[in-house]
Amino acid sequence: MYKYLDKVNSPKDVKDMNVEEMDILSKDIRKFLVRSISQTGGHLASNLGVVELTLALHKVFDSPKDKIVWDVGHQSYVHKIITGRKDDFVSLRQFNGLSGFPKENESPHDIFDTGHSSTSISVAQGIACARDIKKEDGSVIAVIGDGSITGGMALEALNHLGYTNTDMIVILNDNEMSIDKNVGGMSRHLSGIIRNSTANKVKDEVEKLLSVAPGGKLISKTANKVKDSIIGKFVPQECAFFDSIGIKYYGPIDGHNIKELIDMLNKAKTKKGPVLLHVITKKGKGYRYAENEPHKYHGVSKFDIKEGVKSSSTKSISSAVGEKLISMADKDNRVVAITAAMPSGTGLNLFEKEYPNRYYDVGIAEQHATTFAAGLAKNGMKPYFAVYSSFLQRGYDQVIHDVCITKKPVTFLIDRAGIVGNDGETHHGMFDLSYLNTIPNITVMAPKDSKELDLMMDLSLTMDSPVAIRYPRGNSYYLETGVYDSIKIGSYEIVSQGEDILILSIGTMVKHALEAKKILLDNNINPTIVNARFLKPIDESLLKDLFSKHKQIVTIEDNIVTGGFGSRINKFIIDNNLKLNIANIALPEDFVPHGNADEIYENVGLSPSKIAQTIKNL
Amino acid sequence: MYKYLDKVNSPKDVKDMNVEEMDILSKDIRKFLVRSISQTGGHLASNLGVVELTLALHKVFDSPKDKIVWDVGHQSYVHKIITGRKDDFVSLRQFNGLSGFPKENESPHDIFDTGHSSTSISVAQGIACARDIKKEDGSVIAVIGDGSITGGMALEALNHLGYTNTDMIVILNDNEMSIDKNVGGMSRHLSGIIRNSTANKVKDEVEKLLSVAPGGKLISKTANKVKDSIIGKFVPQECAFFDSIGIKYYGPIDGHNIKELIDMLNKAKTKKGPVLLHVITKKGKGYRYAENEPHKYHGVSKFDIKEGVKSSSTKSISSAVGEKLISMADKDNRVVAITAAMPSGTGLNLFEKEYPNRYYDVGIAEQHATTFAAGLAKNGMKPYFAVYSSFLQRGYDQVIHDVCITKKPVTFLIDRAGIVGNDGETHHGMFDLSYLNTIPNITVMAPKDSKELDLMMDLSLTMDSPVAIRYPRGNSYYLETGVYDSIKIGSYEIVSQGEDILILSIGTMVKHALEAKKILLDNNINPTIVNARFLKPIDESLLKDLFSKHKQIVTIEDNIVTGGFGSRINKFIIDNNLKLNIANIALPEDFVPHGNADEIYENVGLSPSKIAQTIKNL
Repeated sequence: MYKYLDKVNSPKDVKDMNVEEMDILSKDIRKFLVRSISQTGGHLASNLGVVELTLALHKVFDSPKDKIVWDVGHQSYVHKIITGRKDDFVSLRQFNGLSGFPKENESPHDIFDTGHSSTSISVAQGIACARDIKKEDGSVIAVIGDGSITGGMALEALNHLGYTNTDMIVILNDNEMSIDKNVGGMSRHLSGIIRNSTANKVKDEVEKLLSVAPGGKLISKTANKVKDSIIGKFVPQECAFFDSIGIKYYGPIDGHNIKELIDMLNKAKTKKGPVLLHVITKKGKGYRYAENEPHKYHGVSKFDIKEGVKSSSTKSISSAVGEKLISMADKDNRVVAITAAMPSGTGLNLFEKEYPNRYYDVGIAEQHATTFAAGLAKNGMKPYFAVYSSFLQRGYDQVIHDVCITKKPVTFLIDRAGIVGNDGETHHGMFDLSYLNTIPNITVMAPKDSKELDLMMDLSLTMDSPVAIRYPRGNSYYLETGVYDSIKIGSYEIVSQGEDILILSIGTMVKHALEAKKILLDNNINPTIVNARFLKPIDESLLKDLFSKHKQIVTIEDNIVTGGFGSRINKFIIDNNLKLNIANIALPEDFVPHGNADEIYENVGLSPSKIAQTIKNL
Repeated sequence: MYKYLDKVNSPKDVKDMNVEEMDILSKDIRKFLVRSISQTGGHLASNLGVVELTLALHKVFDSPKDKIVWDVGHQSYVHKIITGRKDDFVSLRQFNGLSGFPKENESPHDIFDTGHSSTSISVAQGIACARDIKKEDGSVIAVIGDGSITGGMALEALNHLGYTNTDMIVILNDNEMSIDKNVGGMSRHLSGIIRNSTANKVKDEVEKLLSVAPGGKLISKTANKVKDSIIGKFVPQECAFFDSIGIKYYGPIDGHNIKELIDMLNKAKTKKGPVLLHVITKKGKGYRYAENEPHKYHGVSKFDIKEGVKSSSTKSISSAVGEKLISMADKDNRVVAITAAMPSGTGLNLFEKEYPNRYYDVGIAEQHATTFAAGLAKNGMKPYFAVYSSFLQRGYDQVIHDVCITKKPVTFLIDRAGIVGNDGETHHGMFDLSYLNTIPNITVMAPKDSKELDLMMDLSLTMDSPVAIRYPRGNSYYLETGVYDSIKIGSYEIVSQGEDILILSIGTMVKHALEAKKILLDNNINPTIVNARFLKPIDESLLKDLFSKHKQIVTIEDNIVTGGFGSRINKFIIDNNLKLNIANIALPEDFVPHGNADEIYENVGLSPSKIAQTIKNL
């Protein structure tokens, strides 16, 4: 079916090919990627962009002795294909199937697990420094995108790497995109380099100037000497940014020209000290739809190859948040919106169109985003930072230090809270209730449905203190249960009255609890279900009242069992010296793998049926 | 007493002075700083370095309408002196006294609370963007050190600032030091600029080359044209790093020349877009001892002005850790040590001397440090990252994502855990038990004393998984109570047998519990005291046994009451359906102010007498 790909079962098979064969192999791989991902869903555009680069890396380097560290990791499919895993792609991102990210336990060629951005240089430098201590050899290569490299930790790593002068290669895979269009001063700098290399420009100018000198040909020798001297000085400044901190820059390099890539990688292999190869690739390369709308083809569900990805007819919660924020901005000119390189993922792309002057995409920079929001709040704004739960982990210190100590009215719109599904371990938003629970002065809410999310956003606008609202990945949904009036801070609501058993459920788990109740009713168990809208403050008076009327308390949260909602309820019960039976249903004290969200819920005991089962067993 | 300082009660009084008067005022302020800090302790060297800079800022700008944001903030004493707080310096860093950091609630001139590094550019940009949205005017100035500017979030901010092109001034206060000597590629780059400006160097070279051209004087016009063209290209690259990302660089500027500072600040004030002034200062300036050993005079206790700071005769816990790590490295060549710009604070300065090739100071870069450690561990090393508790908050995501998902054997030596005293809110290590409690796969320990800390370090070396050991600021101490054999993972020990009341105390709180017991015995209360060495795993079998023999359980931890040790014990009790009386003694769910550690313990209820009191009241 694939003339060349069928022959490739290990990197050695790529090594045995010549450039022409590798070019054909590239075509095979693109075909395979499009076909395979159209069946399973997954990350498409970024992988289409790195086909030649990946092949050239495996041609020149000897993995896994030479170590290739993929940043973020969603662009490691080609690497997986040629390291013996192409047949596993039918199970891509499925429960117990192939991961969409590098996984050390999947292959010795996967050097480091990664799902968050900007980690690869730190990892690779660590590996390289250990190599040097042990006096071993072998190359270490970090492959990082032009979005990822602007993340603070990558910049910290570059600063350290330029100082230790460790032999190491950084491949800057520049497609002028993060998931969305890239932003930032560095990105602009890199684009400038691509458009015209400074060295070439200056060289031309000097030649032009010298050619009109009255000395004419007579001074040609000196002229050339001058020119070489100047160009000699200029060449190492082709990318001032990297060279200034001690990373030798080479580029730009055509990332779809296998011969050029192999030549440059071979050169880089022998260089002493850290080098950076600036490789220009096209996201979505080779699949027309993906080339035209790369952000739409970043992560996709199943699709028809001929027709491309269809726009969804259902509205995501993220889009609803974006729209709500616009309506709030319409009425209140203090409202500003911030994203860290996720405008479409968070729904803020809608906001950007309406209020470009009150919208900030700061790049992959959750730390800066958080403190920047605090600065905006200090000067009278009401900033909303929409951010994925697992990425806000990067801003934990800033939430404490810059937002909460002085109670700045910043609102965190925490998207992708709870189980996200196929992205797995690194992307589940399963720590936010716990890490926010530890921080004084912040109000933490989670709505039962999209309608309540709107009300919580309204509430946040009236508050003059830090707020976090967490909500899941997925489509807008409405329970139409309980009340949809404006919400009072710290107020819970009974969404279903029952007896004996009291279920305190938070956020999207209210829905699961209500569904579990249907099952339980068939077993003559009629629990009371509470929508515990606030992680903190809790509704102490309602809880005390309900505790006196129930024998068994159950807390349910789609967050790790440690330190979150259940923990706070436990503490309240203990502080009040109530001798109640309590069960905490939550995610286990462990990392949760990838898979379809429903399968994961079932697996971790958070599906309605498993919740019902657990309650029956109490 | 101070001819000019006595006249200064507000910034206006500085504005009214001429340069000569300001020079004399500088001398007065230095005298005041040395005298005052020699009485109270505090940050000395950094403040001596910014006297002229601070005066020039207040001369040129109109605080608080113009907003000066101090990074880290320990260099804000001069600012405090001239904004009406000089008489408060007698209470500096004391309980209820003047803070050693900027505090919004202390003065309208203090724009933003800060104690952690690298936040000022983000804050200032937020303030400036809000100003622009509101169409107001006024300058916004971030004052940041050359150490702080290499922190990831500051680099993220620069990248964003270069892109938004916001009118804003960054003052880079370059003393070529963090607290210790500075490291990093950028620091080297900046030092190079100070030594000789690139522009000048190239200009000289071109002139030299053109002067030997055979065309001689005849080509002088062309030569000059060539030269100007080249220099025109070079000048904006005087600091390639900043210019490349869109921040206009001016410098270097003599930070002790008030006239030059005023001129440059006046120029910067009218520039459009972001500008960076590179100001060179001398840490410790004007006090001989501090000039010679600035790191020793970074933060000082009371001292004799004539004799300078005496070396302490007692050994700090940090030094003991440094020595222990050396002895471990002697025996095990996998041991490597990492600090994030805190070699002397963490005791790793000792390690650096013995094992320079297995030691890494990564700069102010806790994110990178954590993941770099994971990379070292991946390639066979046993990395020890010694870091202050409140600064590891910056690496929370990296601990989860890069260390714990794949169980990398990285050990975090968490210094300054619990109450640190006079540095206050931003520096207390009061969240670590909580934030580490949320993370799967990491073993978290806290020793009762320095001898047990050694044993825990030994234990960590035998473990092939993530470990954290937290210990307080202060001098080594030995309880000589209980057992000092090698420790089994998850094993607690009974340090004092009693009855009825069971006190589970962790880390340094074991000492407080033992002292509390002395008080309680006088009241005929004889509690059992357990050294709960592990936050996790807990000693389930010992706990079950002890729970069956006691009526009241008390947990004690010097960590916020939410989500930490008490929380884990509560959960264990609830999961086992034990109907016990429990009391959690811990830091309140609030930020804790500065002051003498003993005063704070007393204030928050963690002093032995307050612990005894709480237990009596149960």
